[in-house]
Amino acid sequence: MALKNDRFLKALMREPVDVTPVWMMRQAGRYLPEYRATRKQAGNFLKLCQTPELACEVALQPLQRYEFDAAILFSDILTIPDAMGQGLYFEEGEGPRFQKVIRIAKDVEQLPALNVTADLGYVMDTVSLIRRELNGSVPLIGFSGSPWTLACYMIEGGGSKDFRKVKEFMYNNPEVMHLLLEKLAIAITDYLNAQIRAGAQAVQIFDTWGGILTTSSYFDFSLTYMKNIISNLIKEADGRPLPAIVFTKNGGLWLEAIANSGTNAVGLDWTIEIGDARKRVGKSCSLQGNMDPFILCGSDGTIRDEVGKILESFGNGNGHVFNLGHGISPGINPDKVSVFVDAVHELSARYHS
Amino acid sequence: MALKNDRFLKALMREPVDVTPVWMMRQAGRYLPEYRATRKQAGNFLKLCQTPELACEVALQPLQRYEFDAAILFSDILTIPDAMGQGLYFEEGEGPRFQKVIRIAKDVEQLPALNVTADLGYVMDTVSLIRRELNGSVPLIGFSGSPWTLACYMIEGGGSKDFRKVKEFMYNNPEVMHLLLEKLAIAITDYLNAQIRAGAQAVQIFDTWGGILTTSSYFDFSLTYMKNIISNLIKEADGRPLPAIVFTKNGGLWLEAIANSGTNAVGLDWTIEIGDARKRVGKSCSLQGNMDPFILCGSDGTIRDEVGKILESFGNGNGHVFNLGHGISPGINPDKVSVFVDAVHELSARYHS
Repeated sequence: MALKNDRFLKALMREPVDVTPVWMMRQAGRYLPEYRATRKQAGNFLKLCQTPELACEVALQPLQRYEFDAAILFSDILTIPDAMGQGLYFEEGEGPRFQKVIRIAKDVEQLPALNVTADLGYVMDTVSLIRRELNGSVPLIGFSGSPWTLACYMIEGGGSKDFRKVKEFMYNNPEVMHLLLEKLAIAITDYLNAQIRAGAQAVQIFDTWGGILTTSSYFDFSLTYMKNIISNLIKEADGRPLPAIVFTKNGGLWLEAIANSGTNAVGLDWTIEIGDARKRVGKSCSLQGNMDPFILCGSDGTIRDEVGKILESFGNGNGHVFNLGHGISPGINPDKVSVFVDAVHELSARYHS
Repeated sequence: MALKNDRFLKALMREPVDVTPVWMMRQAGRYLPEYRATRKQAGNFLKLCQTPELACEVALQPLQRYEFDAAILFSDILTIPDAMGQGLYFEEGEGPRFQKVIRIAKDVEQLPALNVTADLGYVMDTVSLIRRELNGSVPLIGFSGSPWTLACYMIEGGGSKDFRKVKEFMYNNPEVMHLLLEKLAIAITDYLNAQIRAGAQAVQIFDTWGGILTTSSYFDFSLTYMKNIISNLIKEADGRPLPAIVFTKNGGLWLEAIANSGTNAVGLDWTIEIGDARKRVGKSCSLQGNMDPFILCGSDGTIRDEVGKILESFGNGNGHVFNLGHGISPGINPDKVSVFVDAVHELSARYHS
């Protein structure tokens, strides 16, 4: 079935669009009361992720309220380590935790290969269901954490303030770290390709923790593995190209290298001026971003002004997907999201004439 | 009295030196058992800061162990808001907290002007004492938090994961935020000049949280105020120039602008390649940094290799002060610091011939 709204896919391929497409990282999330209700019904966050009907429901909720140009799979970035036997769980009010953590070389060597169909079938079921329910309205984005980001959680056992454990591991056992990242890159490639086969029409790699690395470690331990993944992704689906997006938080210093990784688009956090980013990447790829999520705490006028500034900074022409520079925060008033989304569509038309 | 070792001051002024000078952010700190003993004797961290004899003792401890080329005042970056009546305290195992937080315009308007001599005399006493005890061996660095960084703590009431409160305040009340930053800039200028009069021979502004801002907000709400401070600092002491260092964590995107702020040196975190940074700043200023602090978890060989790579990346010539890209972490083995400091001196000689 033909897509009714394919602005998002066109912008990722630097093709002309009528207005700038927009979606939000974490658009299906806690800022929405209907999300909180479904999550309560599921029992907890992990069960919500693992129940395709409910995960599909929350993925569609933001599209019922707002004119978003894409839907994104509702899931967690840590499904892969969980499927590899690390035992993902969430403590109330805390971030993710693992029952088993990677401490020594043997832990990496013994890490089982992932069988995506057997181990993560619930994710593919969710993808298929969302795709079916979207009924061609907007495209569906699949996603995964990056190898480096998954490794951070697997070695730290959860989030971290300083990432001491994973850095200690990397600096003392670089070859074992590479083995872990290779295993994860293979698993992630399979995972993303399975999502594409199940119906995802674009994929995003979340490199949430790439930005904590030195430049040379970023290239060696994060970007290389994302490149490998991208080069092994299915390149076409439904007769059109299947675009990839790489989002490295705090990756502004490495923009040219990320843009040349084979990705179709680079996700930008809010710290970089998008016009500067555009000059730096040239025509090598599209850009996605990059409003500070906390602009949504401001007045309607502040939100519209900031959207206008970002559009102006990007300027005329193709290759921009509007987004926040990070996931939306749970405390945001849902009404502000309408102001944001409508401003993007309304104010961007003049840059696409 | 003439300085016996003035490498640090010379490097900050881009003058020739025999070897690259080195010091470490948080060099007087919890990784040292003798520090922990003195802190215990003081009762707690704040009392340690407020007792000149003990603060002087811990400031000198690292110099007894290592060949550092500079000492730094031992104090906290939050002495100014504390002196303004915000009520600084520390909870065991937690970061800093304030009893009073800035919530509304009135809180900013009523914030008293700082009288550094009356309110922060203990800091100046500490500076004088350290300077006297150093006895001309190495120069003494004074410091302050940046206006933006102090404002973050004063509005958040402590540290933060997402800085929602301070951003909400800034985006909703930009003019009140500017008033707060102006007041803080005046206080910080007085504070640093008082440290210089008391004996500080260089000053560093810690802009710990500038990196959480968008580019335009960084310029408007952080860098502008640091520029104002720098332009009003005492420019000479003991017949030599008094250099300033600006350290914005995650400020790599804004390097040229920071370098042109009037500062003599830019402190770099570990994410940027120092050779790239040098190309970008040209001859406008010196660079300080920038080894990942967690390299100190590695083997002696790893530490020496990394020191060598950073020296090679900077290359021949003047204008480099070696440092970590962030404060040393409490769990580091003190023996590793010797390896680090000795490697800098030993491996850098060939770049200064």
